[in-house]
Amino acid sequence: MTSVHSLYGPIAEDLELVEDTLHLVTRSDFLPLRNMLELVLQRAGKRLRPALALLAGGFGDYETDNQVALAASIELLHTATLVHDDVIDTAATRRGLPTANSEYDNAASVMLGDYMFAHAAELVARTGNIDVIRLFAETLMTMAKGELDQDISAFDATSGTMRDYYRRIFGKTASLFATAGAGGAMMSACDRETTDALRSFGRHLGMAFQIVDDVLDFCGTEEALGKPVGSDLSGGTLTLPSILLMEDDPQSNPITRLFETDDPALRAQCLAEALDLVCNGDVADRAMAVAQEWRDEALAAIAALPRNAHREALEGIADFVTRRDF
Amino acid sequence: MTSVHSLYGPIAEDLELVEDTLHLVTRSDFLPLRNMLELVLQRAGKRLRPALALLAGGFGDYETDNQVALAASIELLHTATLVHDDVIDTAATRRGLPTANSEYDNAASVMLGDYMFAHAAELVARTGNIDVIRLFAETLMTMAKGELDQDISAFDATSGTMRDYYRRIFGKTASLFATAGAGGAMMSACDRETTDALRSFGRHLGMAFQIVDDVLDFCGTEEALGKPVGSDLSGGTLTLPSILLMEDDPQSNPITRLFETDDPALRAQCLAEALDLVCNGDVADRAMAVAQEWRDEALAAIAALPRNAHREALEGIADFVTRRDF
Repeated sequence: MTSVHSLYGPIAEDLELVEDTLHLVTRSDFLPLRNMLELVLQRAGKRLRPALALLAGGFGDYETDNQVALAASIELLHTATLVHDDVIDTAATRRGLPTANSEYDNAASVMLGDYMFAHAAELVARTGNIDVIRLFAETLMTMAKGELDQDISAFDATSGTMRDYYRRIFGKTASLFATAGAGGAMMSACDRETTDALRSFGRHLGMAFQIVDDVLDFCGTEEALGKPVGSDLSGGTLTLPSILLMEDDPQSNPITRLFETDDPALRAQCLAEALDLVCNGDVADRAMAVAQEWRDEALAAIAALPRNAHREALEGIADFVTRRDF
Repeated sequence: MTSVHSLYGPIAEDLELVEDTLHLVTRSDFLPLRNMLELVLQRAGKRLRPALALLAGGFGDYETDNQVALAASIELLHTATLVHDDVIDTAATRRGLPTANSEYDNAASVMLGDYMFAHAAELVARTGNIDVIRLFAETLMTMAKGELDQDISAFDATSGTMRDYYRRIFGKTASLFATAGAGGAMMSACDRETTDALRSFGRHLGMAFQIVDDVLDFCGTEEALGKPVGSDLSGGTLTLPSILLMEDDPQSNPITRLFETDDPALRAQCLAEALDLVCNGDVADRAMAVAQEWRDEALAAIAALPRNAHREALEGIADFVTRRDF
């Protein structure tokens, strides 16, 4: 596994400041809360979103403190949504570590997520940038709506149009990537055109990222995923590979059958069949090709920006995210 | 039941604008979300917190739009915490109506609460007042920590000191009342002294309010409460009446016995005994006397403010809140 961090070039040092800020977030004077925060924030991910926010700032009047506060706030918001997602999905592990709701109870996890949302809002408020603060609040509205949308659509075979899928993944993922790009640019007082370009880059990258994630949910290993393979489908969520599979054979596919039965053995059999068809047929490759189209759109969005180390890093991230083995 | 609204005098009209703002919040373009928002926002409560925010504004340079946005934001934040509380308590009814998590599922209710937090943040961000925005975020942190504190202390008889109790009710209730007072004052650019006075009024009023609420949980009727009598105790939460009862007889009281058994019949018997001792003995009266001391502190906090219709309304609310039959 190539470390994505090697791509972060010009902002690698400031990303360390983001880590420091996140570490400070865990220093609550209330010990049970501190333990919970350490549990969920120690699971260091790729920090793609804060990296995007910092890199976007490089196209304007970059001021470290505010840029770092925004980047940390975005990562904290992201982690808070994961905590609430895990409550909803009653997930036992994430990134190979126990989830908050498996270590503690659901009630505590709901409150932990609320605390993290509030702290994220407090971090972004520190910047004093009203436009970014509003964007941040609106993004959380969009994300909550997107998760609700996904929850309501679970085990509903009619929610499997591409339009439904794109709407859901924009809400749950791409909206925050778009905000990282646009918010990072707004924080450094970029002009409107540059801000729009970086928002568009973030949105398209977020769509590509989520599609790859959805493919990996089928074709990755439990070890690399840190959760069971096929979790989306067994949880009733239709993603691109499932949708392609259903389109290929509307009359007789394992997805529709899986959604129609409550029998655990039959479900397991349908799931195994779907995994096989996706990963050993051409569905996974076709889905990856769709992700690469979104990546190309992301690259096109910033094609008119100055060629500098920041743009190079953004391009490197876009390539990295759509490589199958990341 | 006297309507508290008759006390709101100088801000009664603007409180209607708060209702209009909350009504607009329900107009989501996503129908399932709209239905959920209508369910939880139609349960019109006393609107004490927004009234406090509006009245506090009357001591400074009152600007209707921003004052109303803040007041609506505070009520929305409050309602969002109720939605998450109901998930945690797996409550079936609130204010006599079904809760979101009984009508929908827990997952949807978690997301509904998140959406409402975000919308509340968006409303307060509209005012452009950074100090109030930060105060708002910090208050949500305090509230989430307070709820976590209460959750962790459940069924723990050693969490029954007055200090623990005051810390918990400050977190879950009085902190938001304090923010309504201070935020309302800050929004209208009151001087530091006035802002501190109104924060202190809110904090003390919030403590009094929660104590009365905790007494009513023992001695009210299921019809008036909109939930079963004794819910706090049966959910493992120690409140003032329970604490006084335990102090009266540390060796043999129904609370300790209730916390020590898992037998539902024995629990029901202990609960009935506790309710009888609190409401037919002098515990309820002693707890109400404590609430009235907090009310007196609230009144003292604003004693130096100008005598005007706004102060008169605040005093009327303080009296109303600590009357036993409200």
